[in-house]
Amino acid sequence: MKKILILGAGLSTNSLIEYLLNNAGENNWHITVADMDLDTAKSKVNNHDCGSAIRFDISDTESSNNTISENDVVISMLPASMHSMVATACIKYKKPMLTASYASDEIKAFDKAAKEAGIPIYMELGLDPGIDHMSAMKIINRIKESGGDLTSFYSFTGGLVAPEYDNNPWNYKFTWNPRNVVMAGNGVSQYIHSRRYKYIPYHRLFDRIISRKILQYGDFEVYPNRDSLKYRGIYNLEDIPTMYRGTVRRPGYAKAWSVFVSLGMTDDSYTLEDSENMTYRQFINSFLRYEPNVPVEIKLADYCKAASDPVVMDKLRWLGIFDERKIGLKNATPAQILQKLLIEKWSMDPEDKDMIIMQHEFKYRLDGVEKMVVSAMAYQGRNQTDTAMAITVGLPLAIATKLFITGQYSHTGVVLPTGKEMYEPILNELETFGITFEENDYLVG
Amino acid sequence: MKKILILGAGLSTNSLIEYLLNNAGENNWHITVADMDLDTAKSKVNNHDCGSAIRFDISDTESSNNTISENDVVISMLPASMHSMVATACIKYKKPMLTASYASDEIKAFDKAAKEAGIPIYMELGLDPGIDHMSAMKIINRIKESGGDLTSFYSFTGGLVAPEYDNNPWNYKFTWNPRNVVMAGNGVSQYIHSRRYKYIPYHRLFDRIISRKILQYGDFEVYPNRDSLKYRGIYNLEDIPTMYRGTVRRPGYAKAWSVFVSLGMTDDSYTLEDSENMTYRQFINSFLRYEPNVPVEIKLADYCKAASDPVVMDKLRWLGIFDERKIGLKNATPAQILQKLLIEKWSMDPEDKDMIIMQHEFKYRLDGVEKMVVSAMAYQGRNQTDTAMAITVGLPLAIATKLFITGQYSHTGVVLPTGKEMYEPILNELETFGITFEENDYLVG
Repeated sequence: MKKILILGAGLSTNSLIEYLLNNAGENNWHITVADMDLDTAKSKVNNHDCGSAIRFDISDTESSNNTISENDVVISMLPASMHSMVATACIKYKKPMLTASYASDEIKAFDKAAKEAGIPIYMELGLDPGIDHMSAMKIINRIKESGGDLTSFYSFTGGLVAPEYDNNPWNYKFTWNPRNVVMAGNGVSQYIHSRRYKYIPYHRLFDRIISRKILQYGDFEVYPNRDSLKYRGIYNLEDIPTMYRGTVRRPGYAKAWSVFVSLGMTDDSYTLEDSENMTYRQFINSFLRYEPNVPVEIKLADYCKAASDPVVMDKLRWLGIFDERKIGLKNATPAQILQKLLIEKWSMDPEDKDMIIMQHEFKYRLDGVEKMVVSAMAYQGRNQTDTAMAITVGLPLAIATKLFITGQYSHTGVVLPTGKEMYEPILNELETFGITFEENDYLVG
Repeated sequence: MKKILILGAGLSTNSLIEYLLNNAGENNWHITVADMDLDTAKSKVNNHDCGSAIRFDISDTESSNNTISENDVVISMLPASMHSMVATACIKYKKPMLTASYASDEIKAFDKAAKEAGIPIYMELGLDPGIDHMSAMKIINRIKESGGDLTSFYSFTGGLVAPEYDNNPWNYKFTWNPRNVVMAGNGVSQYIHSRRYKYIPYHRLFDRIISRKILQYGDFEVYPNRDSLKYRGIYNLEDIPTMYRGTVRRPGYAKAWSVFVSLGMTDDSYTLEDSENMTYRQFINSFLRYEPNVPVEIKLADYCKAASDPVVMDKLRWLGIFDERKIGLKNATPAQILQKLLIEKWSMDPEDKDMIIMQHEFKYRLDGVEKMVVSAMAYQGRNQTDTAMAITVGLPLAIATKLFITGQYSHTGVVLPTGKEMYEPILNELETFGITFEENDYLVG
């Protein structure tokens, strides 16, 4: 019998746990779900014959070391900052580890120790990062094998509300961590276009969008992610002239959001004086000039060109940002206040479903001819528990765990799913769950 | 005999050391000038009978403790980050300490220990902070004593090139640390206007200027400093409806500078790819959209409204930011590249002199009447050693040291020069050096 330990039973773990429990009987596995909150762990195991639930606290080193040492494989769904503690224990007890999180520099530093211990630390096995790598590498490797020379790679992902439930002026709802949405793009965004490096400061990011039609879902806009350059190394495309990764939203989102960025309302670095007693109207006014006889709406349109667009103003008014309603948050940063308001307005209704959109666009030269292939995926959630986000994050991780335990992987060190032997069986099995990419070839020029 | 130790003999210490040496004979002082570089210290002492020079390294705790313990008073002109190490030793050996630097939270934390040791740690005894506090508090206290009620306080300071030597399109040269000028305003700027808190994000700071005529020197513009709010506490004006502090430049500076900020060229948080082989033209182009058939100048004017102004473009062209000249800096941040270019263009010529401008504007209500008083100071440097900046930073510190040693101050703990007993004799003596404020009353309304 193989013992699989899942650390963390939070929001996005449902599909992961369900898949492993469903496969446990025939494979002779035991699944232990471990969480700070025992009831959460128990509810996920749901009295399954092959599962058990335990209370787990990674900061209690002795107890968590014991738990890890008693299992054969460790899947960490804990917050990314805790993965280092897990990795330390996994190396100590020579236990393979898998996560859906970014391979941070901190995690990469474990590579040598993991190799010496003879274990793999599989990272980036979720959606983004995860399925993005796998689905991109599948086409990159195919083009290379055919003798093609890649000249351009654009790749976009977005978590959105499914079209049927898309009923607010922003065409957006929170389907994932609201804080990440409020802070999105903070810092500089960098990519390369025709061998020219391009850098966009945060305050201009939402002015620099591109537009796309994706599958049958109509029009979207894309803003650049923070670091597209590092993917040249990850995808083994060091010399590609154009590399751009971005985030997908519905058209009009960026222009309205740029008003918040331009005013400084997404700043999380300082707290506002007396924020508790401030109204939302005073909040927005605190970023505008002092001129008491001019309405906030007029001052805003004067200050920020985007806000002179009635379509933008409609979005802002709908949020209630001009309302004389108290914020009621003590010592709050601008970002925290904005997030509070957005959670009230952008939360999914109980019947709502979410949708993942992903598209890769490759240009390449083959036998002297310019070619283009576009690969796109859309996937809708089933309900508020089995969201598209949770399914697409959890399933590749679950499938990779099965492939590893059944002996189909033999890596050591810190590993990303960019090798053919890794992504091919995962993508094939994801298709059986309806997570499929549609490919189309286009003439160029 | 009293032994005075001066730590650091850098650029701004000339007036300080000269004043103390000049006063050493009659007061029976010995002045020790201590610096990492013994030759620098020696050159400042210049074989004066009452002075000696030593090599000093604050990171060598044993040796620096010995030096501090052998003296009666310690003046630290070391970089601000080193003051804590000095304060630790001063408290240990019960030696009074004086600096021209901001009382950081780290320094304020020494307050209790300094009081227990029975010594003062005088901070903010320079120009800004320093003379600004003293000259403002003189008028604030006078208005309060007369029964007046302060309603508004605006205060501005700037270090500029003196008018006779002001011969470039920016009407600006570096008279102080270039890095501080490049990074000026980075973060949020906050002030209060008619009881409304106002917050300006960095990327809009240079759009939010006010204009002023100051003394006989003509027109200036002012942009807000980072934190004007904290001065309500420092000046004992907790309930003042309007409090604004700003930095003075010549008109047109902010609009041109805003182009750099808007593009992200003052960012110091990341390095540019292959910066060494980049030209300045490629540098600015890396912040603009990819469109190879459109000149950089046109793309810039399209992207950034300020750059469509020919007066702004004249300033930018004069700097050489569009030149096909190699930068030659490895792994450089945008801010470092910009600083390198500015140092080439904005450095003072050998014969140039600098100028300090400071203005305070007070509004108050007295006997039911609205009144306004403006207090302004301008001071020009003598040469490249005795700059206005070095003199106005060094003299108040030197005078305060004399006043302390001659028994006219008896504080303990961390002390700022906001008390009448402190600032009155310093301001009086500064007048004998030509550092004088001109006051004018104005009718309001």
